[in-house]
Amino acid sequence: MPEIVKGLKDVYLDTTESSFIDGQVGKLLYRGYDIHDLAEKSTFEEVVYLLLYGDLPSKEQLAAFDAELRASRRIPDGIITVLEVMKAAHPMDALRTGISALAGYDVAEVADNSVEATIRKGIRLTAQGPTIVAAHHRLRQGLEPLAPNPDLSHAGNFLYMMFGELPDEETTGLLDVDFILHAEHGANASAFAARVTASTISDLHSAVVTGVGTLKGPAHGGAAEEVMKMSLDIGNPENAEEYARNHLESGGRIMGFGHRVYRAEDPRARHLRDRAQALGEKKGEPRWFQILSHLEQKTMLPYRDRGICVNVDFFAGAIYYLLDIRTTCSSPFSHLAASPAGRCSAWSSTRTTS
Amino acid sequence: MPEIVKGLKDVYLDTTESSFIDGQVGKLLYRGYDIHDLAEKSTFEEVVYLLLYGDLPSKEQLAAFDAELRASRRIPDGIITVLEVMKAAHPMDALRTGISALAGYDVAEVADNSVEATIRKGIRLTAQGPTIVAAHHRLRQGLEPLAPNPDLSHAGNFLYMMFGELPDEETTGLLDVDFILHAEHGANASAFAARVTASTISDLHSAVVTGVGTLKGPAHGGAAEEVMKMSLDIGNPENAEEYARNHLESGGRIMGFGHRVYRAEDPRARHLRDRAQALGEKKGEPRWFQILSHLEQKTMLPYRDRGICVNVDFFAGAIYYLLDIRTTCSSPFSHLAASPAGRCSAWSSTRTTS
Ligand SMILES: CC(C)(COP(=O)(O)OP(=O)(O)OC[C@H]1O[C@@H](n2cnc3c(N)ncnc32)[C@H](O)[C@@H]1OP(=O)(O)O)[C@@H](O)C(=O)NCCC(=O)NCCS
Ligand SMILES: CC(C)(COP(=O)(O)OP(=O)(O)OC[C@H]1O[C@@H](n2cnc3c(N)ncnc32)[C@H](O)[C@@H]1OP(=O)(O)O)[C@@H](O)C(=O)NCCC(=O)NCCS
Repeated sequence: MPEIVKGLKDVYLDTTESSFIDGQVGKLLYRGYDIHDLAEKSTFEEVVYLLLYGDLPSKEQLAAFDAELRASRRIPDGIITVLEVMKAAHPMDALRTGISALAGYDVAEVADNSVEATIRKGIRLTAQGPTIVAAHHRLRQGLEPLAPNPDLSHAGNFLYMMFGELPDEETTGLLDVDFILHAEHGANASAFAARVTASTISDLHSAVVTGVGTLKGPAHGGAAEEVMKMSLDIGNPENAEEYARNHLESGGRIMGFGHRVYRAEDPRARHLRDRAQALGEKKGEPRWFQILSHLEQKTMLPYRDRGICVNVDFFAGAIYYLLDIRTTCSSPFSHLAASPAGRCSAWSSTRTTS
Repeated sequence: MPEIVKGLKDVYLDTTESSFIDGQVGKLLYRGYDIHDLAEKSTFEEVVYLLLYGDLPSKEQLAAFDAELRASRRIPDGIITVLEVMKAAHPMDALRTGISALAGYDVAEVADNSVEATIRKGIRLTAQGPTIVAAHHRLRQGLEPLAPNPDLSHAGNFLYMMFGELPDEETTGLLDVDFILHAEHGANASAFAARVTASTISDLHSAVVTGVGTLKGPAHGGAAEEVMKMSLDIGNPENAEEYARNHLESGGRIMGFGHRVYRAEDPRARHLRDRAQALGEKKGEPRWFQILSHLEQKTMLPYRDRGICVNVDFFAGAIYYLLDIRTTCSSPFSHLAASPAGRCSAWSSTRTTS
């Protein structure tokens, strides 16, 4: 019998220059640059350029690259039609379907796997992803999707397309950091799955679709949503301890803790912690951060020694929630009657399976 | 430096009872049953039951299971709308998008990862897949999609929905065998990628979407299409030798040969070989099989000793082509002016990218 390697633990399938992770000390580099420097001093646009081309851009290079991104944000009307059909779906299902459908509008390049074409397609998909998410967000509330605003940055335009208002600098900056922190992470589950798809010489659309479907899972990117669901269930900082104890004692996990690679704190978490707290205070809803703080500082403290520390998803869910970036309306997110998600209830059960 | 295992060669990530492959002798079992017995004596419906539940069904079990499949074939109107949008897309892109969009109609169960719900969803997707493929096939020719016919078997109904005629027994049997041969193949690239998606506790729709996008690649299921493109390029048996020599000498591969696991002939190939020949004669187009025969018996004969033998995709492409199951109209498949694919030319360039 050959040895079975569950979860491919300690198996290395390739080397990469895109990023470097030292899980023991909680270190993350993109192309040699420390994630802390990038999070504090860079923009998402610069980071995408860095990841694609290997070096930070000059001023001129950045201007040209940013212009290309801005010019690529629109999605065809047919994609809006597809997103209408997906009105009742989870946002990740809508994003996965929207990107998959974009292949139908890219017939000239979809099967061109040259490096040049793949980079062009990658830039288009990077620019169009937020347009899909925002259009779906509005459609499921009965609102018209908004055309992208080419005067705004990637993060700023996303907020504008979601809510129809010019976003303030602080909120734009918060989302920009969030995007930087999520831009690259070696061979995590979604990137690895996307790579397996690409390995059959399929195409970039297929690979990215694979990535989105994989990211959705609660053991991966879906953890952010689960953390917020749990916070909503807890409701109040006073309930946190009892809820978490019961949950752990019945064999549950606290989402947003633990990581396949990091045995120390996920270096990305710190950039969202203070920002989540500040946002909660600004929005007059400090309790979500208080709940998270309790879990981090009290309940999960003993887990630190076992290498189960806070990860990037722990604070992200609360940030999205406070920014009104919500999951499907049928989820626990909508059980706060006063929340804008309540608007969706009219359509949440209008679709049937066949 | 840790060892790098390219393509995860010789790494085993799990055991499975679904199938067994002995690549050295070219042996394939589904749940302990030899593929040769299943191909000759079984039906696709029985094989799906076998794979799902571990044993061949009794007469009553098969009747109930088949009834469930037949009752699950319809797709919602919204999916037809999505496929209209995908009119110019490659059929695999349309299938990937259609399955992804079905998640929007399965909101009640999409995130339910219990075994029971996953089997229910699996049965629905198995039944709906052909409906998506056939609807797209008709839409891109300007024809109305047809509702499934519950009086026909899985394979028979697929042919009916494609072409609008009750298929003869021989053609239905041919497609039934083809479906059996493709029903399961251990941890091949598409199943493996789907598994990585499922490993994050995502959901079945995401996993199947990943599988379709991965299967599309020419190093995997897309090889069938590439073999037929090559046959069309060759055009005539007399040209085969020179074409193949030039192609191999310039570093190209002959698609439909070689396999990651099989070092002997792929046991699935033999069930398509004679059938491809018979179909070609029946359709009055024997030359495609003659071209393939030449490649197999002459050009690629020396490769046998190196373990590079014919695989399942080698004869499949010609079969699909002769059955009028074609790829996109902008591909080389349409350059035979007299072929029905010519009908598509009117729309092949009506879509733009933004
Ligand atoms: C991310 C994760 C899948 C990594 O798993 P892993 O490194 O393979 O570790 P395992 O699943 O083998 O767990 C190892 C041990 O730690 C425990 N553990 C891991 N994460 C835990 C968590 N979040 N809460 C409580 N216990 C946890 C497990 O129960 C297990 O305990 P045991 O040895 O007593 O059975 C896992 O930590 C997890 O499920 N976290 C929650 C989901 C999440 O936040 N995902 C986002 C990652 S960015
Ligand atoms: C399927 C496939 C990817 C398996 O590859 P693999 O086992 O990893 O083998 P490699 O790609 O490492 O190739 C090993 C050698 O065989 C040669 N080879 C493999 N398949 C070949 C083919 N179809 N035609 C010509 N030469 C081939 C390679 O060129 C290589 O030669 P080299 O050692 O002189 O460089 C490969 O055989 C292939 O590309 N086949 C054509 C596509 C196909 O039919 N796919 C469907 C599989 S069901």
